[in-house]
Amino acid sequence: MTQLYQAGKGQITDEIRKVAEYEGIDVQKLTRRVAKGHVVIPTNKNRNTKPCGVGRGLRTKINANLGSSPELENVQLEVNKAKVAVEYGADALMDLSTGPKFRAVRQAIMESTDLPIGTVPIYQAGITASQEKEAVVNMDEDDMFQAIENQAREGVDFMTVHSGITLDTVEKVKRSERIMGVVSRGGAFLTAWILHNQEENPLYKNYDYLLEIAREHDITISLGDGLRPGCLADASDIPQIGELLILGDLVKRAREADVQVMVEGPGHVPLNQVEANMQIQKTVCKGAPFYVLGPIVTDLAPGYDHITSAIGGALAARAGADFLCYVTPAEHLSIPGLQDVKEGVIASKIAAQAADVAIGLKSAWDKEMGMARARKNFQWEKQYQLAFDPEKARKCRERKPTPESDMCTMCGEFCALRMVKDNL
Amino acid sequence: MTQLYQAGKGQITDEIRKVAEYEGIDVQKLTRRVAKGHVVIPTNKNRNTKPCGVGRGLRTKINANLGSSPELENVQLEVNKAKVAVEYGADALMDLSTGPKFRAVRQAIMESTDLPIGTVPIYQAGITASQEKEAVVNMDEDDMFQAIENQAREGVDFMTVHSGITLDTVEKVKRSERIMGVVSRGGAFLTAWILHNQEENPLYKNYDYLLEIAREHDITISLGDGLRPGCLADASDIPQIGELLILGDLVKRAREADVQVMVEGPGHVPLNQVEANMQIQKTVCKGAPFYVLGPIVTDLAPGYDHITSAIGGALAARAGADFLCYVTPAEHLSIPGLQDVKEGVIASKIAAQAADVAIGLKSAWDKEMGMARARKNFQWEKQYQLAFDPEKARKCRERKPTPESDMCTMCGEFCALRMVKDNL
Repeated sequence: MTQLYQAGKGQITDEIRKVAEYEGIDVQKLTRRVAKGHVVIPTNKNRNTKPCGVGRGLRTKINANLGSSPELENVQLEVNKAKVAVEYGADALMDLSTGPKFRAVRQAIMESTDLPIGTVPIYQAGITASQEKEAVVNMDEDDMFQAIENQAREGVDFMTVHSGITLDTVEKVKRSERIMGVVSRGGAFLTAWILHNQEENPLYKNYDYLLEIAREHDITISLGDGLRPGCLADASDIPQIGELLILGDLVKRAREADVQVMVEGPGHVPLNQVEANMQIQKTVCKGAPFYVLGPIVTDLAPGYDHITSAIGGALAARAGADFLCYVTPAEHLSIPGLQDVKEGVIASKIAAQAADVAIGLKSAWDKEMGMARARKNFQWEKQYQLAFDPEKARKCRERKPTPESDMCTMCGEFCALRMVKDNL
Repeated sequence: MTQLYQAGKGQITDEIRKVAEYEGIDVQKLTRRVAKGHVVIPTNKNRNTKPCGVGRGLRTKINANLGSSPELENVQLEVNKAKVAVEYGADALMDLSTGPKFRAVRQAIMESTDLPIGTVPIYQAGITASQEKEAVVNMDEDDMFQAIENQAREGVDFMTVHSGITLDTVEKVKRSERIMGVVSRGGAFLTAWILHNQEENPLYKNYDYLLEIAREHDITISLGDGLRPGCLADASDIPQIGELLILGDLVKRAREADVQVMVEGPGHVPLNQVEANMQIQKTVCKGAPFYVLGPIVTDLAPGYDHITSAIGGALAARAGADFLCYVTPAEHLSIPGLQDVKEGVIASKIAAQAADVAIGLKSAWDKEMGMARARKNFQWEKQYQLAFDPEKARKCRERKPTPESDMCTMCGEFCALRMVKDNL
């Protein structure tokens, strides 16, 4: 009885109704889109999640990645990051913890919010194997599926599974001239596992079983792009597109099993390849919601990858991406801190809004019109209210007082708006 | 004997030779582009400027706006901003001072660097009129041309002139349903002047005289977009495009007078209109270099307009813009401080590099390949060297020490690159 199953029977679920209302979209139309798999609503039955629609015709959503690493683990810090992400407008959170207390972090994040929560269960399987069996590559099939079932019961709403990493795709990587190889962590766990064990990926081989678990709890499967490019030169190459073709097949099988499914995408992509990547995903995966990381459009700006990915993300969302995974200024350098999370969320909000305006979403345009009128009328408080970061805007303007309350220090008495108004 | 004149005669000037060498482009080809006006090299004969080419086939250049306002005037601060802009890679600087000591600021900035310097001489005319004749609108034709001649002799390399603001375009603004009216400061000075005096804009009426001055000193004319949109809803409207058509005519006249000329562009533009704006400018203005401010693709992010404009700027430069004017986080709020200048320059560098990669510029690709190889090989020092902001990248990674020198805290032992390498 997943959202997809019910929508397919023409049933309007509570979740669909709430999403339709929030998005200002006809409920019948939304039901049809959920039934087709063009929209997903990640809501695990074991959790009281605020329904959030992702897909065609809806506002572009953004996700914030949180979680510890073996080098930095602090449960309260992760909860604080979650709060900051929610405060600045994240639509979903992923817990990607890989520190030893990953269970505690996940639980604390899930308790801190009602936003949809995503995970990558292979991390749990890999870390546990690393702790108990000496190495990640010693995890077995049971470890992988136990992690999935375990997290399913805990209420995780969407799960990244790298079922597209297969014996064949690993061969493609070995034969390719990729510079960066495998940069997806989950993808690397499974690539290393395949190389070490010389066996097929259990998440591919037993994909039907995986779908059974997902169906039981109505978990949305997020098909991971384990072979996403890790630098611009690797973009759109044979391993990446080869994996995408497998994902297209896995989308079909998920839908046939009434399991909601979305697809993850690159990565590091030159600006001129971003649209093509979106179009190919949408055709190959039959309109499945596309969840992109970045794309990062230049690698020369470590410390500023929230900006490199806001450029790629805006273009991607305009060309069909539905869900932007934020990238923080700490990307490629360290685990993000609180300020990084804030900046990452805001940069993603900017990209999403720019795209939503470009595709003509009324709610996005209404906000722009509101800001334009507030500016025209020198209504500073109104401008702060409409801003993604009211506090930063206020502080910046109030650095130095101006003689008149509606001025700013940029032009002072030589304000363009004022000068023309006075002479009209 | 301007660059354009000499190139038209097939003469390879020292400036053309230096630009060709720096850009890695054939010197004959560059000479032809300068002769056609598709490339400009702003170098006032009265100043020893480092030659910098702007236009077709060259690396996308970025400009940093500096200068005081009536509310904040500090000569040393402006010099420090200039130094920061140069340090982080600005290709040109504009002094837009409107404070009472504007001459001192301009002089100090010009002495601090050999980058091309641009100004908007109508500011000087307007401020002087405001000081001596009670109001900006009381400036007369002589005041305007004296400011231009004065700055020409001082060595200004390129000048923004709003010759496209005419009695006719002002009528178009009055009849239009624009929300924001005129947001260009120079545009507003002249619009107000026309409204007040009910006379034609002297910079339009006596454009030939303006060209004479420009030719004498080989100043590059930058045709200002006085009617650029100030919010997304005003983009690509009749006043904006109407002014652009006049600029197209003025480009032709400048070239006929052997004066180097470029054209300024919007402004606030929805993402889906950016490419169209670039294409229309390039056709209407016959391939003149396009100098864009932003474009800003959403107005909801005051405090982050370096990001909103990096998105628009990247897309613009990919679609033909040649010169990006930076926008700082302080835009719409206050005059920028030192940190704002730094962030603005870096965001513009990101946009320019993303576009240069997309259009296949070899030098841009080489840098990306260098960074990819440094990442693959865990060469952190090399990564910092290649980064737009080495210090920020280093600080971010070194927030917390890692057990091994080539690790980072993002994944620690669970590093994707390392895991696959170990199992290959």
